[in-house]
Amino acid sequence: MVEDGSPDSLQQLIAALWPSTGNARIVGITGSPGVGKSTLTNSLAAHLRAAGRMVGIVAVDPSSPFSGGALLGDRVRMQGHHADDGVFIRSMASRGHLGGLSFATPQAVLVLDAAGFDDVLVETVGVGQSEIEIAATADTTIVTLAPGMGDGIQAAKAGILEIADVFVINKADAGGAGKLEAELRGMLEMGHAVGADGDGWWPPIVRTVAVRDEGIEELAAAIDQHTAEIAGSEAAAARDRERARHAIREIVLERSRIAMDAEGAGLDELAAAVAARELDPYQAADRLTASIG
Amino acid sequence: MVEDGSPDSLQQLIAALWPSTGNARIVGITGSPGVGKSTLTNSLAAHLRAAGRMVGIVAVDPSSPFSGGALLGDRVRMQGHHADDGVFIRSMASRGHLGGLSFATPQAVLVLDAAGFDDVLVETVGVGQSEIEIAATADTTIVTLAPGMGDGIQAAKAGILEIADVFVINKADAGGAGKLEAELRGMLEMGHAVGADGDGWWPPIVRTVAVRDEGIEELAAAIDQHTAEIAGSEAAAARDRERARHAIREIVLERSRIAMDAEGAGLDELAAAVAARELDPYQAADRLTASIG
Repeated sequence: MVEDGSPDSLQQLIAALWPSTGNARIVGITGSPGVGKSTLTNSLAAHLRAAGRMVGIVAVDPSSPFSGGALLGDRVRMQGHHADDGVFIRSMASRGHLGGLSFATPQAVLVLDAAGFDDVLVETVGVGQSEIEIAATADTTIVTLAPGMGDGIQAAKAGILEIADVFVINKADAGGAGKLEAELRGMLEMGHAVGADGDGWWPPIVRTVAVRDEGIEELAAAIDQHTAEIAGSEAAAARDRERARHAIREIVLERSRIAMDAEGAGLDELAAAVAARELDPYQAADRLTASIG
Repeated sequence: MVEDGSPDSLQQLIAALWPSTGNARIVGITGSPGVGKSTLTNSLAAHLRAAGRMVGIVAVDPSSPFSGGALLGDRVRMQGHHADDGVFIRSMASRGHLGGLSFATPQAVLVLDAAGFDDVLVETVGVGQSEIEIAATADTTIVTLAPGMGDGIQAAKAGILEIADVFVINKADAGGAGKLEAELRGMLEMGHAVGADGDGWWPPIVRTVAVRDEGIEELAAAIDQHTAEIAGSEAAAARDRERARHAIREIVLERSRIAMDAEGAGLDELAAAVAARELDPYQAADRLTASIG
């Protein structure tokens, strides 16, 4: 229903589930393409399972007409967990319109939260504006880097350093891990934004080789430490409110998108008139707003 | 005004400029972080300038509290064009809220179009949902890959292969360019989506070494070829309408965001009530919608 249901049935679903939510620990895992997020998520899930925790995974992947999911080799690899009832994996497809992921992902997280999973791991590509915002609304956000991709500078450009509660340098057996860590520490010292959200937390840097499960115990410990650090803090409460605010706003925007899509031919005509320079985009937006009420 | 102006003044600006738009050739340049998009954009701009064309560049970069622009070394490099009146470069900062780039970027493009630039190059990170959509609304969209980053598969995951009119394999002097090209050709043959938009265009693959301006002439020729191919076609008209539709929708959504932000304390209270499980997110969205009218 989160992915395909009518807006009304989804609303009923969330209303029914809502009182049961708020118990899961939500961990965002983000980073540029190619840093090994999926492998890291998989390895972390296995570690958490071994500790007896129920693990939900929401993997945010834009849809591709190419793939229909078939090219998602890392998803297939994750099916090592297939026979384990304590792991539930959901790969989110974009629902074909802008904003779909921002709207649908928090709702998928709510479903897993209500279902009683102890941890919900949300893996997003850490580059797009929407995708970064999704990761940032987690209780603990892990920013993953890897050597040899110019990631230090690139991550700073993408604005993801400041959302990190824990840094992972994955593929740490590759050359350049030390250089990347030094570069990262330099940036953290330059950037007063980090650690300045009132909770006194300075994000640790954990080195991993996720394909060999190396460093995953240290990563899990760093997440636990952050969980303990923020428990009951104003920072944690602020994050809850921020997540709620994000969900509310996305519902309102999604309704607006649905209303616009429902205009169908009306929107087509307005777009044609704008393309023909008969109307400017604001005039068209005024008419569209008027017609959707 | 596009970045900082009041909604009313922006609306007046666009209304005034709109009749003068529609003449520029809009070229989207996208790809994962680290593939060298900025260098490629810079080199292409220099080539176009040498051919006597006026070039506007809109670089879409999420803001970072770290950088305030200072870490954007590639932007600095671009200032080789600084003394040239025929090049105008604008680095878009996120305006601090989700959707900002989707809304502001098309308007910045309009301004450069109206100002009479022959080409407007729009450089976006090719990973996020919003960022990909921005690139896809160009007249010609260039998808940039680079060897050694697992980019073939990664690009397919991110859903950017199908928006390409021209592929660039940058850093083609690095090992693996041949392998990447073979992988890419394989994917293109698998993916019937490409070339199937009715214009019979099959995206060429151009190898470049942008830091040394190698392959840029071939890239410019490929863009020209695409421009000629789509000129006057239904595919080109459809792209115009799609760009208009995108602009109209983003204006409506932006107005909704502005209205929500204007609620301030009201939205804070609703978020707190949702976080406390007193309201579910849909109930809060209903109240927010009612209060913003």
